[in-house]
Amino acid sequence: MPSALVLLADGTEEMEFTIAYDTLVRAGVDTQSVYVPPDNGGTKAVSPPVAKGSRGINIMPDAYLDPTTCGPARYDLLVIPGGAIGAKTMSGNLVVHKLVRDFIAKGKYVGMICAGILAALSSGLPSQPLTSHPSVKEDLQVDFQYSEDPVVVSGHLVTTRGPGTTFQFALTLVELLCGKEKREEVRGPMVFPADTPW
Amino acid sequence: MPSALVLLADGTEEMEFTIAYDTLVRAGVDTQSVYVPPDNGGTKAVSPPVAKGSRGINIMPDAYLDPTTCGPARYDLLVIPGGAIGAKTMSGNLVVHKLVRDFIAKGKYVGMICAGILAALSSGLPSQPLTSHPSVKEDLQVDFQYSEDPVVVSGHLVTTRGPGTTFQFALTLVELLCGKEKREEVRGPMVFPADTPW
Repeated sequence: MPSALVLLADGTEEMEFTIAYDTLVRAGVDTQSVYVPPDNGGTKAVSPPVAKGSRGINIMPDAYLDPTTCGPARYDLLVIPGGAIGAKTMSGNLVVHKLVRDFIAKGKYVGMICAGILAALSSGLPSQPLTSHPSVKEDLQVDFQYSEDPVVVSGHLVTTRGPGTTFQFALTLVELLCGKEKREEVRGPMVFPADTPW
Repeated sequence: MPSALVLLADGTEEMEFTIAYDTLVRAGVDTQSVYVPPDNGGTKAVSPPVAKGSRGINIMPDAYLDPTTCGPARYDLLVIPGGAIGAKTMSGNLVVHKLVRDFIAKGKYVGMICAGILAALSSGLPSQPLTSHPSVKEDLQVDFQYSEDPVVVSGHLVTTRGPGTTFQFALTLVELLCGKEKREEVRGPMVFPADTPW
């Protein structure tokens, strides 16, 4: 069974987090959320606090971000959601930088959403095609080949623009991890309108 | 400022809950979530527990469902999300039945999603147009004018089919509560693909 790690912080965009996590679970992917603390790893609490999302929804992570257990040896996919404040925390976190580089180096997937794509820059990924929320386009377009496509797959880096493109992003990840048939199996019961373009 | 009450229970579909709640907050709607206990109101705990959603995401409600403070005198909109287990709890809850009838009687909106629409039946709403998740169509089509449109507005009852139609549902509620301009203002930054049909 493929496995996925979805990051969560205070200020994470709740819809992006939830659509990614829930869709992966629907596909049978072994999915865990981990809390990224705002102090770059200094917090020593045993249990993660509830994270308050960008619009005030309180979500309890499954565990704390732990570099000894969260790497590509354990997971096939790392997902970094957006939300301005949450994305700032994640893209400024040294453990996250190392995870992003390690996942890519080991041929595992990294998915980034919205402002979460700032982590591509802060982790030092090489220039390649990507997209992001328009609000952080300026920060990314010099160092990357910027696209306005809803979902951009560049090797093992998969990026998307906002809550409105996260279903397409999540289904793309399902297809990459579990195949086209599983994507269709998961998509059906979500009951998208007939003319939805994904 | 319009106000909204979004129900949450163990087994609630996380995407439906989150897309509805978050989109309403983006529109400036004063939004609260309340926990519906599985024992039809018998629980006497002071603080609500974290609700475990249909795909395992733990969400902390803002408060307990309290019939003395959750009525149409306080809120302009009641939202009942789906998820088979959560919808069963909500549609079997006597406080919820009364809220549904009271909101409609007072000319306030009631939004129902997916299997949450079973509450239209259990609350004794009169025959009218509605839609639902296909999995509960059989339970509803005898007593209501069943439609397969993504979103059905019938007076003050607004219904939708599943996670894949919840963005359209939430934006429809924003338009009903806050006007067409606010709907467009909220929709833009969500960055839907250009050919999205809502």
